[in-house]
Amino acid sequence: MLPTVLILNGPNLNLLGTRQPEVYGSATLADIEADCARRAAALGLAIDFRQSNHEGDLVSWIQQARGTHAAVLVNAAGYTHTSVALLDALATLDIPVIEVHMSNIFRREPFRHHSYVSGVAKGVVCGFGGFGYELALEAAARLIGAVLQDDQPPG
Amino acid sequence: MLPTVLILNGPNLNLLGTRQPEVYGSATLADIEADCARRAAALGLAIDFRQSNHEGDLVSWIQQARGTHAAVLVNAAGYTHTSVALLDALATLDIPVIEVHMSNIFRREPFRHHSYVSGVAKGVVCGFGGFGYELALEAAARLIGAVLQDDQPPG
Amino acid sequence: MLPTVLILNGPNLNLLGTRQPEVYGSATLADIEADCARRAAALGLAIDFRQSNHEGDLVSWIQQARGTHAAVLVNAAGYTHTSVALLDALATLDIPVIEVHMSNIFRREPFRHHSYVSGVAKGVVCGFGGFGYELALEAAARLIGAVLQDDQPPG
Amino acid sequence: MLPTVLILNGPNLNLLGTRQPEVYGSATLADIEADCARRAAALGLAIDFRQSNHEGDLVSWIQQARGTHAAVLVNAAGYTHTSVALLDALATLDIPVIEVHMSNIFRREPFRHHSYVSGVAKGVVCGFGGFGYELALEAAARLIGAVLQDDQPPG
Amino acid sequence: MLPTVLILNGPNLNLLGTRQPEVYGSATLADIEADCARRAAALGLAIDFRQSNHEGDLVSWIQQARGTHAAVLVNAAGYTHTSVALLDALATLDIPVIEVHMSNIFRREPFRHHSYVSGVAKGVVCGFGGFGYELALEAAARLIGAVLQDDQPPG
Amino acid sequence: MLPTVLILNGPNLNLLGTRQPEVYGSATLADIEADCARRAAALGLAIDFRQSNHEGDLVSWIQQARGTHAAVLVNAAGYTHTSVALLDALATLDIPVIEVHMSNIFRREPFRHHSYVSGVAKGVVCGFGGFGYELALEAAARLIGAVLQDDQPPG
Amino acid sequence: MLPTVLILNGPNLNLLGTRQPEVYGSATLADIEADCARRAAALGLAIDFRQSNHEGDLVSWIQQARGTHAAVLVNAAGYTHTSVALLDALATLDIPVIEVHMSNIFRREPFRHHSYVSGVAKGVVCGFGGFGYELALEAAARLIGAVLQDDQPPG
Amino acid sequence: MLPTVLILNGPNLNLLGTRQPEVYGSATLADIEADCARRAAALGLAIDFRQSNHEGDLVSWIQQARGTHAAVLVNAAGYTHTSVALLDALATLDIPVIEVHMSNIFRREPFRHHSYVSGVAKGVVCGFGGFGYELALEAAARLIGAVLQDDQPPG
Amino acid sequence: MLPTVLILNGPNLNLLGTRQPEVYGSATLADIEADCARRAAALGLAIDFRQSNHEGDLVSWIQQARGTHAAVLVNAAGYTHTSVALLDALATLDIPVIEVHMSNIFRREPFRHHSYVSGVAKGVVCGFGGFGYELALEAAARLIGAVLQDDQPPG
Amino acid sequence: MLPTVLILNGPNLNLLGTRQPEVYGSATLADIEADCARRAAALGLAIDFRQSNHEGDLVSWIQQARGTHAAVLVNAAGYTHTSVALLDALATLDIPVIEVHMSNIFRREPFRHHSYVSGVAKGVVCGFGGFGYELALEAAARLIGAVLQDDQPPG
Amino acid sequence: MLPTVLILNGPNLNLLGTRQPEVYGSATLADIEADCARRAAALGLAIDFRQSNHEGDLVSWIQQARGTHAAVLVNAAGYTHTSVALLDALATLDIPVIEVHMSNIFRREPFRHHSYVSGVAKGVVCGFGGFGYELALEAAARLIGAVLQDDQPPG
Amino acid sequence: MLPTVLILNGPNLNLLGTRQPEVYGSATLADIEADCARRAAALGLAIDFRQSNHEGDLVSWIQQARGTHAAVLVNAAGYTHTSVALLDALATLDIPVIEVHMSNIFRREPFRHHSYVSGVAKGVVCGFGGFGYELALEAAARLIGAVLQDDQPPG
Repeated sequence: MLPTVLILNGPNLNLLGTRQPEVYGSATLADIEADCARRAAALGLAIDFRQSNHEGDLVSWIQQARGTHAAVLVNAAGYTHTSVALLDALATLDIPVIEVHMSNIFRREPFRHHSYVSGVAKGVVCGFGGFGYELALEAAARLIGAVLQDDQPPG
Repeated sequence: MLPTVLILNGPNLNLLGTRQPEVYGSATLADIEADCARRAAALGLAIDFRQSNHEGDLVSWIQQARGTHAAVLVNAAGYTHTSVALLDALATLDIPVIEVHMSNIFRREPFRHHSYVSGVAKGVVCGFGGFGYELALEAAARLIGAVLQDDQPPG
Repeated sequence: MLPTVLILNGPNLNLLGTRQPEVYGSATLADIEADCARRAAALGLAIDFRQSNHEGDLVSWIQQARGTHAAVLVNAAGYTHTSVALLDALATLDIPVIEVHMSNIFRREPFRHHSYVSGVAKGVVCGFGGFGYELALEAAARLIGAVLQDDQPPG
Repeated sequence: MLPTVLILNGPNLNLLGTRQPEVYGSATLADIEADCARRAAALGLAIDFRQSNHEGDLVSWIQQARGTHAAVLVNAAGYTHTSVALLDALATLDIPVIEVHMSNIFRREPFRHHSYVSGVAKGVVCGFGGFGYELALEAAARLIGAVLQDDQPPG
Repeated sequence: MLPTVLILNGPNLNLLGTRQPEVYGSATLADIEADCARRAAALGLAIDFRQSNHEGDLVSWIQQARGTHAAVLVNAAGYTHTSVALLDALATLDIPVIEVHMSNIFRREPFRHHSYVSGVAKGVVCGFGGFGYELALEAAARLIGAVLQDDQPPG
Repeated sequence: MLPTVLILNGPNLNLLGTRQPEVYGSATLADIEADCARRAAALGLAIDFRQSNHEGDLVSWIQQARGTHAAVLVNAAGYTHTSVALLDALATLDIPVIEVHMSNIFRREPFRHHSYVSGVAKGVVCGFGGFGYELALEAAARLIGAVLQDDQPPG
Repeated sequence: MLPTVLILNGPNLNLLGTRQPEVYGSATLADIEADCARRAAALGLAIDFRQSNHEGDLVSWIQQARGTHAAVLVNAAGYTHTSVALLDALATLDIPVIEVHMSNIFRREPFRHHSYVSGVAKGVVCGFGGFGYELALEAAARLIGAVLQDDQPPG
Repeated sequence: MLPTVLILNGPNLNLLGTRQPEVYGSATLADIEADCARRAAALGLAIDFRQSNHEGDLVSWIQQARGTHAAVLVNAAGYTHTSVALLDALATLDIPVIEVHMSNIFRREPFRHHSYVSGVAKGVVCGFGGFGYELALEAAARLIGAVLQDDQPPG
Repeated sequence: MLPTVLILNGPNLNLLGTRQPEVYGSATLADIEADCARRAAALGLAIDFRQSNHEGDLVSWIQQARGTHAAVLVNAAGYTHTSVALLDALATLDIPVIEVHMSNIFRREPFRHHSYVSGVAKGVVCGFGGFGYELALEAAARLIGAVLQDDQPPG
Repeated sequence: MLPTVLILNGPNLNLLGTRQPEVYGSATLADIEADCARRAAALGLAIDFRQSNHEGDLVSWIQQARGTHAAVLVNAAGYTHTSVALLDALATLDIPVIEVHMSNIFRREPFRHHSYVSGVAKGVVCGFGGFGYELALEAAARLIGAVLQDDQPPG
Repeated sequence: MLPTVLILNGPNLNLLGTRQPEVYGSATLADIEADCARRAAALGLAIDFRQSNHEGDLVSWIQQARGTHAAVLVNAAGYTHTSVALLDALATLDIPVIEVHMSNIFRREPFRHHSYVSGVAKGVVCGFGGFGYELALEAAARLIGAVLQDDQPPG
Repeated sequence: MLPTVLILNGPNLNLLGTRQPEVYGSATLADIEADCARRAAALGLAIDFRQSNHEGDLVSWIQQARGTHAAVLVNAAGYTHTSVALLDALATLDIPVIEVHMSNIFRREPFRHHSYVSGVAKGVVCGFGGFGYELALEAAARLIGAVLQDDQPPG
């Protein structure tokens, strides 16, 4: 069986592509899921792709990742900036956690510049739209296969 | 001729792999350059890979990217957090700028959590060591080939 | 069919009037709903009145307002001050959003002075108890019927 | 004789409608006064509608409201954010004070998010343009006729 | 029938003892519940022990404590630091509320030093692991039996 | 000989019960000492109970605890919030330190919310009046008898 | 001719004693003026006692003090905390300036703790009601008669 | 027997006049005591004048004022800005507390602008050198003889 | 008729040159007006030179500039740092606004470093004494004659 | 020989006019130099016009101005906000320093509102594009010819 | 007689070397005193070496240094960061004051980065353990023998 | 060969003694170098003394110290407070780093109180002018010869 990556999507991401396609693009969350599945297969991975508007659901799903999943990709959307519970759940995992954001959160409102997730993630990918999920999957594949040193190079 | 990506490395990155390999790993900046060249070739791209300890050099190189390069990858290292001059130089470009950090800067000292580069970058990749350069190259390839919408999805 | 206004009530508002009536008054949330229904009818509007203690429920209900409702009144109670998810959900709507609070939140603890909802609401009504819902309904009726200019007069 | 509501307008509100009507709308302060008079009459109220660019005038008018007026509506415009003198004058009244703003001050510059008036007002109405004065009059009518409890419901 | 103490456990506390027992100890939440039940019996009390990852569940359970429970012990975990909704729910109770944390939250990250619960709790016990629940039960027994003065001694 | 717990009381605690008993209760510091002695005996412990208005006395007494006492209970009163010297003295001990406050310091003035003692204490008990000393003695008994893990559970 | 002390009273001080005498006392500003006149006479001084709600009036009156008055007593009321213009006017004087407040401004709202006047006053008297004016007059008499050293003793 | 006013002087005030008289003036603390005694006698008061460099001494002396003294004058010098213990001691008194400073603390370093004493003092006199003690004695005489209302006039 | 520039002078500027000429120079505001008139004539401009200590006067004069004046020079003195009303008045103009200060406000107290006027001015001239008015007139002449681009060059 | 003014241009100013002329205008740095040379000649001055992207170059050039130049004009661009080294170099000069910015830095990002240069400059000119250099030259001519008093008028 | 240097040691420094020698080293305060005496003799100086846990003792000792000592070395330990009284005492001296810390306080907790002593010390030596006292003695010898200019070189 | 200490001097230090000798003293950087060489020789050390105005030069020189030098003395002057690149370079060294400043930076502007160098230095010497370099050399000699424990004594 293929190693499975849990891909979590937070509140409002279910709206992607279904509203104002002329503004936000026509790619739905299902489209992103399909892209992820395709890329994962190419990398020898399976995916488990979920979305919820409930913080508690995300916490519970993270808890269940242990023993069953090889890595977690998290786009916690609005909960990114407010959820200590999410941080605590992610901190209990010993598999790689990768933070993803479709937008470059550092070009948005100041309250979006701080993420509770970043402090427990191995790395962050943001600003590349749905394609960022694929980059994160590549990183996950690499991290699952190897042990990256937790060093602090200059940059 | 292949589209060329300018890859800029800031102060102290020239030390990678040459000191305390038991701690920081043995990959040198040259190794990362080689990995980037290989990945770029696979993506139909060329690279122009440079390093300097001088803020002014980085500013000048960015200025020269216009008309000659298709995208810029920037790991500004220590200048990331202090250089408005770098921000101003990057802001004059109309090609994609991608910010890269080998470490997850959000797990380090608070003064590393703010980046002047993020505000003018299309996206950010951090925390994946030298492999992050390859992910950023993938993103660059995509951005060069397509026009990603500058929308603000929920996450 | 009458245009319908979605009226959302956040955590603990279900307790209104059922506890310590000598202190908080005897008007229940059902009483406020009845007052709203009566006022709405007089204005040629219908209402859809809901309450939940779950942030995720409020987010989902806001998502469902599109295409089915003409305006949203939000008294997000405790989530007013902490929920970016709510802000993101409201920001996807293109119908008028009106923020309501029974108390004057600016005379209470400092952490209640900031509202994530205000930044995406057309206007705010606070401090008039349950009667504030009726004022907000009047405003909704006006906004549905006309296009108020989004200008910035001096006050 | 009808109970009279003092309606105070601060600096620059005298310009409403007379400049850049294509931007700010063509409603003048006189139009708002007329709307207020009409709505007040329907509510069994009279109005006393004034404007000044001088902080001291506003302070003096508030002082004179005692014993002669039944409520005060205040749109202090620029003085909202800077005048402790106004706060002190309003604090000496024992009739209802209602704060009105035509724009949603929470969507404007950060220095407009704090109001000295809010701390002594019964309630706040903002964001509904000139119509907000009418909503505030409705609230005034209610407050004059009844004693709203000064409780702190959850929202 | 014995007076019953509601003991609420917030997000991720369900993981206690089931993961990394060599690090976090092998005591599960069920073990703590058993210890509490034993101690409560000795004190002439019953317990009602619950856990949820959902903020809304905790709010609703607190609402239901009125009239049925004699005191509430709250270990809100990650919601301790972010939930105004929890604060509002606890503020409606007129039975003693006691805040418990297994770790000494003041020796952890700065964002854990502020608790919304503390402002409405009678007292706080933190840093003594699962045994802190038993101390809190002792305090609850005392508070149920007597009326402690709400004075402010020097320390 | 029984293990002895040093119980330190800071400035003004000598006034307890001797002034305004109708407000602060009639329990004196001597009464609390008696309650502590009784509870300690039941736990197989002795106590060494002291009070001073001098920061330097408290520092010196803490220094003397090493080798002679099994644990320290500290109610540093006003020095809690201002004394780095106290923190330094406590940090040199390798026996358990427990912080006690009679009032819930988090419901008082903001400058009382920060404690230099918390950062070096094993745990904190506050808000339960004189009874809090007894709870702290229970915790001390447990800590002396066992090695509590210094882990960081979610709550 | 007697040396004359200019006594300036800011906004709302004209209301003293005329409203809610059961709360604020029955002493009017005229009573305070009379007390001041009596005390001044005993000290060999005359007074020039004024009040205005207009910041500009206060500024102009301060300007006129030069050459005609021997000292200035200022109770700027609400303008104390917001007026740089007042500070600038006072800074041009080379006669003693004494700040007076009837209430102890340090026991009131935080925004009243800062005074622009203090930075240019010789000294401050606050918290003693109308009697504080008499203390300030005593100080003025002393300062006019002697040259107090502008030293910085330890307290 | 005459009512006695306790006059407390904090650290370094014992140096007054004995060092650098050309800079700080030649008045010693004994001179100030003599002036105070003379003024007190004229007011029908006795004084109890003390100085200590020890915070604990000041705390203890304040505790002893109850029942024996009619008012307390406090020039806590350096402890003014750092001592919560002093604040707590003063807060237990029900006789008038008056804060005195020889210098105008608001024209000195920012850390001298905040006083823990102000929050529990009836009033403050600062900036008038040793003469300020005499003004404070006048205020004490007035406060002992009368009950000043604890109102909040506008200024 | 010549295009006229409105030159506004705020509080205390009427004192220029009349007090302490050995310190502040002997140039009066009338001298500056004369210099401005001379320079304006050379530039083909007329001037309308006013001063007031009243914030409201400045607001009203700015309102009247529309349609009658070609540009506004503002030295708002003390109101520079505190007046939102001034900012609002200036924001309604569509002629060039130039901010002038005689002193270099960035070398003075920190509260003078922020100017509400700067946010709506085309440019700022400060630190050159009365000569700065002439430089500002030059700039005004240029701005009236040409349309400067509102770009953001690097410096 | 004519007195020479050193005109320093910081990072990225070499790009002026060469990129996006439709946005930033077509005036190059060479054009500004030419305008400066012409204006300087008319004022009886010569100029020494330089640009560098290196902070160290600017520091060294400033050091060399002593004894050879009569004044310094500095547009430090991005280094304005970050360079203490520049401040230190300028502080060693005893010839006039004038700060210039083409844009109004107070209408841009908050991090551009603070300038290290302002604290050592005689005056500042900003917001008038390249024409601001000419105004600064006028000011330099005046300062070289006369000794402006370093006073602090009210505005 | 040799010039004598007063060497003051604050709270807890009496513990040096007597506890946990495997961690803190075995050098006691007496050892440091002996090293200081030896080095002082070599420099032609005598020492007066003291330690106290009482802030008031340190204040009194500093007061006594005048006229009897040639310089003061201060390691105020915990009082470094909290004692204004110490600052005031040191400020009355006109002999050189040198601040010493054994540890590098800038690598410890943030509250240790600010020192009240630094503001009145001639210089600071920190981070060199007990050897730092000897370096400070060397500096004292130099300062006693010569008058170092109080200039501000660039670094 | 003697162990060599690299002594780095940042921007503007090349000006020492060459300008305003009546103010800054007549000692040049060359004089300090000579003093250092003499003291180093006495300690059995050689020195390598450099100065640059370029941040990048300092970074590069620090990189080159590894393997060739025994310790580094850094007076980074203006870069002390702004350079993360310097911090990163110093952090890669495993030889002792000692920070030197000629002035006491804690008595200067607030922006000079924070040093990026302190966080990676073994110790700091400041305020003793050029003599501080000699003290630092003494410390370097000691550190090279011995292994100082990296403990945290109380002061």
